[in-house]
Amino acid sequence: MRLPERADVLDAAMRIAGYAHRTPVLHSRSLDRLLGASLYFKCENFQRAGAFKFRGACNAVQQLAPDALERGVATHSSGNHAAALALAASERGARATIVMPEDAPEAKKRAVAGYGAEIVLCEPNLQSREETLAHVIGRSGSHLVHPYDDEDVIAGQGTAALELVQEVSDLDVVITPVGGGGLLGGSACALSGQGHRIRLLGAEPKAADDAFRSLASGRLVALEHTDTIADGLRTSLGKRNFALLKRHSVEIATVEEHTIIEAMRLLWERMKIVVEPSAAVAMAPLLEQPGELSRARIGIILSGGNLDLDRLPWQTS
Amino acid sequence: MRLPERADVLDAAMRIAGYAHRTPVLHSRSLDRLLGASLYFKCENFQRAGAFKFRGACNAVQQLAPDALERGVATHSSGNHAAALALAASERGARATIVMPEDAPEAKKRAVAGYGAEIVLCEPNLQSREETLAHVIGRSGSHLVHPYDDEDVIAGQGTAALELVQEVSDLDVVITPVGGGGLLGGSACALSGQGHRIRLLGAEPKAADDAFRSLASGRLVALEHTDTIADGLRTSLGKRNFALLKRHSVEIATVEEHTIIEAMRLLWERMKIVVEPSAAVAMAPLLEQPGELSRARIGIILSGGNLDLDRLPWQTS
Repeated sequence: MRLPERADVLDAAMRIAGYAHRTPVLHSRSLDRLLGASLYFKCENFQRAGAFKFRGACNAVQQLAPDALERGVATHSSGNHAAALALAASERGARATIVMPEDAPEAKKRAVAGYGAEIVLCEPNLQSREETLAHVIGRSGSHLVHPYDDEDVIAGQGTAALELVQEVSDLDVVITPVGGGGLLGGSACALSGQGHRIRLLGAEPKAADDAFRSLASGRLVALEHTDTIADGLRTSLGKRNFALLKRHSVEIATVEEHTIIEAMRLLWERMKIVVEPSAAVAMAPLLEQPGELSRARIGIILSGGNLDLDRLPWQTS
Repeated sequence: MRLPERADVLDAAMRIAGYAHRTPVLHSRSLDRLLGASLYFKCENFQRAGAFKFRGACNAVQQLAPDALERGVATHSSGNHAAALALAASERGARATIVMPEDAPEAKKRAVAGYGAEIVLCEPNLQSREETLAHVIGRSGSHLVHPYDDEDVIAGQGTAALELVQEVSDLDVVITPVGGGGLLGGSACALSGQGHRIRLLGAEPKAADDAFRSLASGRLVALEHTDTIADGLRTSLGKRNFALLKRHSVEIATVEEHTIIEAMRLLWERMKIVVEPSAAVAMAPLLEQPGELSRARIGIILSGGNLDLDRLPWQTS
């Protein structure tokens, strides 16, 4: 199992330039004042297909040889990786097959179909997802692009942190959410081996704290069922990302559900941007431990902005 | 009655630089494809205090002499101008008194108080507002900064269009919402006397179409009661702005309530930004008459992003 390094992130940045957006970094005086720190928000909610996931999918698809492109790509996902891979494949003229649980939101199915991908429905559990995907790949010879446990995907996700530190100098801390760990693992690669050492923090719902428990125990702990509101973070940490987190001494902060909702609402109200709950998780540690990071220069990667606008979290609580 | 000209907008731009944000212009491939045009969104929802109103308030306050600053500023407003003037005054260390109707949303009262302004409540009708404001001014000698029928305010609002055409070349059309007309009148000044003629279009709810009827009849028509969802546009066109619209041959497009809601939702979903209903009005003509502006390069001023996140328009319809 080869782990990606900083050079792989730099290569990925060259590869996806012209395909992925270089998303803006936003700043809010009002949030800085409220939280007593200097916050720099890398807005991956403005990324194509609405989340950082396009970076990794694009980096993987761009490296496929013509004969592999001919056979297409496949994955299972009910979320942002599905749309990202569908879009990345369509730009190379390649076929994408996405295994989605039959109870996935209609809006997500429409987005995937809108990018021209074929959807294969399965039962809403991991076993059915993996069996269905194996069947698809066995039949078509499609290339699997895993949502997070994939070297090229991880390197691609690292480009967001790379752009952030290129644009904002002298950051003390970078915070990203952690689910499968592609964004956090890729960020660890991107920030390694620079002159100026930046502390990297992964933020995770307490209700899905497998990354925290994995690092605490030293062995990869799988996530049991969770219904955290941060639907993008309901996956278990991947083994490549676990190894990267250990190698680069990444820390994990866990946060309560109500803090995630509070952070999300603050971002909408003060920044006037639409972010999904998983993105707000990265700001939540500042609300729970306001003193710990005070007066620091903090980069926060807002991972995405895809959610159901008919029902907002603060309306159900 | 002197009307502002392009030079006044250029002066205003110098005066407010360093106070007002130079807001970003965003672009969305997905909306371009959907609407068959090239759209450039000037994001005044990211402006300080959440709306373009800070430009005009700042331009007015910056010109006050020390003795006038000493006596403070005053206005009546239940909306974005209230917070904008409160903020602009606080930055000069001046006192602001804002007459607000007693039924104004608590969130808006909190925002105004948060900028250090004094709030004087009145009955929720125009007569009570004006009488209360006259009383405040008579007592304190405060300088009135009218929300839209004021030369300095109009010139300040024009700086948004000025920045837009500086950043995006060869626009065919610019669209802004129109209520009291400060943004539209100021934009008319900003776009006048340039080499390249840009068509200027004001967008207005059909349920508050006093600008449309005023231009059609050639005399200023006052708005009767309206409950358009675009709460920022429930005011009547000011006389200075009426004169500017005639002078610069500005056109008006009226739009249905359901189109405003549809436009607002599209902006949230596709652009991942929080805009208020009044801002979405400027995009609504493209949904009602998709053919009329096809293949054009269109600048759209998104006026603000302040609204009650507990209840979104598509949730009540």
